Amino acid sequence: MKLNQNYANLRDSYLFKTIAQKVNAYKAENPEAKIIRLGIGDVTRPLVPAVVEAMGKAVVEMGDAAAFRGYDDGGVGYDFLLDAIAGYYKAKGVTIGTDEIIVSDGAKSDVGNIPGIFAAGARVLIPDPVYPAYVDTNLIDGNEIIYIDGNESNGFLPSSTSVSTPPALQPQPNASVKADLIYICSPNNPTGAVYDKKQLQEWVDYALRVGAVILFDAAYESFITDKTLPRSIFEIDGARRCAIEICSFSKLAGFTGVRCGFTVVPRELLSEDGKTLLSLWKRRQTTKFNGVSYITQRGAQAALSDSGLSQCRENIAYYQENARIIGAALTKLGIKFFGGVNAPYIWLKCPDGRGSWEYFDYLLNEKNIVSTPGAGFGKNGDGFLRLTSFGTRENTIEAAERL
Amino acid sequence: MKLNQNYANLRDSYLFKTIAQKVNAYKAENPEAKIIRLGIGDVTRPLVPAVVEAMGKAVVEMGDAAAFRGYDDGGVGYDFLLDAIAGYYKAKGVTIGTDEIIVSDGAKSDVGNIPGIFAAGARVLIPDPVYPAYVDTNLIDGNEIIYIDGNESNGFLPSSTSVSTPPALQPQPNASVKADLIYICSPNNPTGAVYDKKQLQEWVDYALRVGAVILFDAAYESFITDKTLPRSIFEIDGARRCAIEICSFSKLAGFTGVRCGFTVVPRELLSEDGKTLLSLWKRRQTTKFNGVSYITQRGAQAALSDSGLSQCRENIAYYQENARIIGAALTKLGIKFFGGVNAPYIWLKCPDGRGSWEYFDYLLNEKNIVSTPGAGFGKNGDGFLRLTSFGTRENTIEAAERL
Repeated sequence: MKLNQNYANLRDSYLFKTIAQKVNAYKAENPEAKIIRLGIGDVTRPLVPAVVEAMGKAVVEMGDAAAFRGYDDGGVGYDFLLDAIAGYYKAKGVTIGTDEIIVSDGAKSDVGNIPGIFAAGARVLIPDPVYPAYVDTNLIDGNEIIYIDGNESNGFLPSSTSVSTPPALQPQPNASVKADLIYICSPNNPTGAVYDKKQLQEWVDYALRVGAVILFDAAYESFITDKTLPRSIFEIDGARRCAIEICSFSKLAGFTGVRCGFTVVPRELLSEDGKTLLSLWKRRQTTKFNGVSYITQRGAQAALSDSGLSQCRENIAYYQENARIIGAALTKLGIKFFGGVNAPYIWLKCPDGRGSWEYFDYLLNEKNIVSTPGAGFGKNGDGFLRLTSFGTRENTIEAAERL
Repeated sequence: MKLNQNYANLRDSYLFKTIAQKVNAYKAENPEAKIIRLGIGDVTRPLVPAVVEAMGKAVVEMGDAAAFRGYDDGGVGYDFLLDAIAGYYKAKGVTIGTDEIIVSDGAKSDVGNIPGIFAAGARVLIPDPVYPAYVDTNLIDGNEIIYIDGNESNGFLPSSTSVSTPPALQPQPNASVKADLIYICSPNNPTGAVYDKKQLQEWVDYALRVGAVILFDAAYESFITDKTLPRSIFEIDGARRCAIEICSFSKLAGFTGVRCGFTVVPRELLSEDGKTLLSLWKRRQTTKFNGVSYITQRGAQAALSDSGLSQCRENIAYYQENARIIGAALTKLGIKFFGGVNAPYIWLKCPDGRGSWEYFDYLLNEKNIVSTPGAGFGKNGDGFLRLTSFGTRENTIEAAERL
C-alpha cells in the first residue's frame, strides 16, 4: 500500500499550530501573563438570539417522532435554507437559483474538496499572501501552483493585467499563462484588501479568455460597508460563465463552532467538453458527503431572517468597531496597515523593517498579544502581521493601549 | 480547464435517486396509495432524551458569550467526546487511545475522503454486493476496483481464502492478488451478514501478508447481540497493524440528520516507507475539514453516556423487533433471506427467480412497499432485495401483513 506522496510537499507544521506552540511555551514560563489573542480568525460573540431559538426548537423537533428528520434527502440542503440563501443574494442585488446552491459543513470543506472535480495537475493561480488551506489542498491534490504576488505596490490586490509589475514580482498571470483555476478571496484573508468591481471584472475577463474557473471565497462579504464594492463575484458581468462562489456562515453569523457554508455554481458554468460543473459538484457532494445537520440548517435559516440578520449585523458592527480601534492605535504609532475597513482583518507592516516572526515574538513576549505572522501566509507576507477584530471589545481596547 | 474524467465512469443515476423517481411516479398516478418505505437505510425513531437535553443545553451555551465555542481547535474532536468514544470501545473490550480517534461529520464523509490519503491508482478490493459509496468514491479517485463476490454459497461473506470458490465467481483475492485497500462492512450493508472472529482473522492475516489496509465499516456494530461476533476489527489479532475502522452515530443513536461519525487509525499502522497513517489522516482532516459542530459533539457524548446508551439501546431493540417481524413474515411465505439478526437489514431472495427491479416494481405496485433492489448494490445483488428494519412498528407490521 502506497500513500499519496503529495502530502510530503506540505510544510511540516500548520501555521496556527506553530503559533499555539509558541503561545503555550510562553504561558508555561509566564503563567500569570494575561494574553490577548488577536491572531486566529475565530469569532468571540455568541450566536444571536434568533439562531439560538431556531436551533433550540430544531433540537426539540428531533426528539419528537412526528417531527424527526433523518437524512437530508437531496443532500445539498433543505429548501427552506436554499430559499433563504437565494433571498440573501437577492437583497444584495444578485439573482441565483436555489438549484445552484449546495449547502455544506463550511467553506473550508468546500475549498478543500472542490479541486477534486477538476483534472489532477491543474494549473492554479493562488495569491501570495494567502489563507494556507488553498495552497495545502492543491499540494495534496498534486496541482501546479503559480503564485500571484500581492504587495504594497498593488495594495495586496494582484491583478491579471499588471503589465507594469516589476520583473522581481513575476510570475504574474498574463496572456501566456493559461490557468485552470484561480483563487480570489475578497475581502481578503489575511490582508483585508477588497477588490472593486473594475478589478474583479479584469479577473473575470481574464478567466473567460483563458478558460479558467475562478474560485471566489466570499467568506467575509458581510463585512463590506462600502456599497460600491462587490459582495459577490456574480455582480460582475460574465462571472456566471467562469466563477464558483464559496461562502460561509462563520463570520456572517458566528458559526465557526456550528459549521455551515455553501457553494454557488451557476448553471452556465461549463467545462471545455460542455459538462455542467454544477451537476459534477452535486455528484461529488452526494457521493462523498451526506448533508448538513437539520439543526444547523435551521440555525442558518434563522440567521438570514430579518431579525436574525439584524442581530448578526450588530455583531459585525461590534467587530468593525474593534477594527477601527486597532487601526486608530496603529495610526497613532505611525504603523502602516491595510484592511480594517470592509474587512475584519488588519494587515500591518512590521515597524523598523522587522520580520514577521520577529515582530510576532516581540508582541507575544513584550505586549502579551498573539498575532499571526504574515510570513505564514506566503513569502510576500514576510514583514507583515495580521491582527483580527474578532476579539472582545475589552481585550481589543486593552491590546490597543498596550500597543 | 479540464474536469476529473473519472466522474465519467460513474453510473448515471445514483441508486436511491432511481428509486425515488419510481416512487414519485407511482405516487403521482396513485395519490391515495399508502406507501410504506422499507427501502432507504434511514432511521425513524427520534433522538433519545439524553441527546436532546445535551444538545439543547449546548445550543444555549452557544448563545452565551462566556460559554460560546468557536472552532474546535484541534479539529479532530473535543476531548469530552474522544474520551466517551474510547470508553465505548473499552466497554466492548477494545483499548484505543483518544489520540487515535478522529471525529467527523459522518461515516460517509470518511469513507469518501479516506482513499485520498493513499496513492492514486490503488488496487481496491470491494465486496459485491456493496454499499454504492465505496465503489463511486474509488471510481472518482481513479482506483482499480476488484470485486470480491458475496453470494449464497458463502453466505454473502466473501473471504480471502476461498480456495474452493468456483471459477465463475472469480476474481477472488488470493496469494497472487496484491491489494492496497480492502473494504469490509460487518454487519453488512446491504446483506445483513456478519463476519465471525475467525473469518475476520483471515482477512487480517491476508492484509498483513500482502501489505494492504482494511477499511472496516463498523456503522452497524450496535446491532450485534451475539456476544461471540466481533463489533470492532480491533478485536482481531494484528488488526492494529493493518486496519482503519470507520464508525457512525447514525444507527447507534439515530444521528442520520445530525451528522457525526469517527474514524480510528491505530498508531501502529504504517505505510511501506514507515509513515504513520494516523498523522496523515489528521493532516487531511485539519486541512480540508474544520471539525464538527460543538452542539453535535455534545449530543454524541450524551449518546454514549450510561443513560444515553440505555435509551439508544431501546431504539435499537425496537428496530431489532421490526427485523424479527419482517423475517417471520418472509419465513411464513417460504422466502429465503439473510441478515435480520445482528443487523438492521434483511436481504431476501426474490421468489420465483425474479430479478431485483422486477420484484421491486411488484412490491411497489402491488403491495405499496418500497424496498431496495439488490441489483443496485452490484451484480451479485440481482435476484435479491434489501428490506430495512428502520420503519415504524406500525408500518412494519402492516408491511408484513401485506406481504
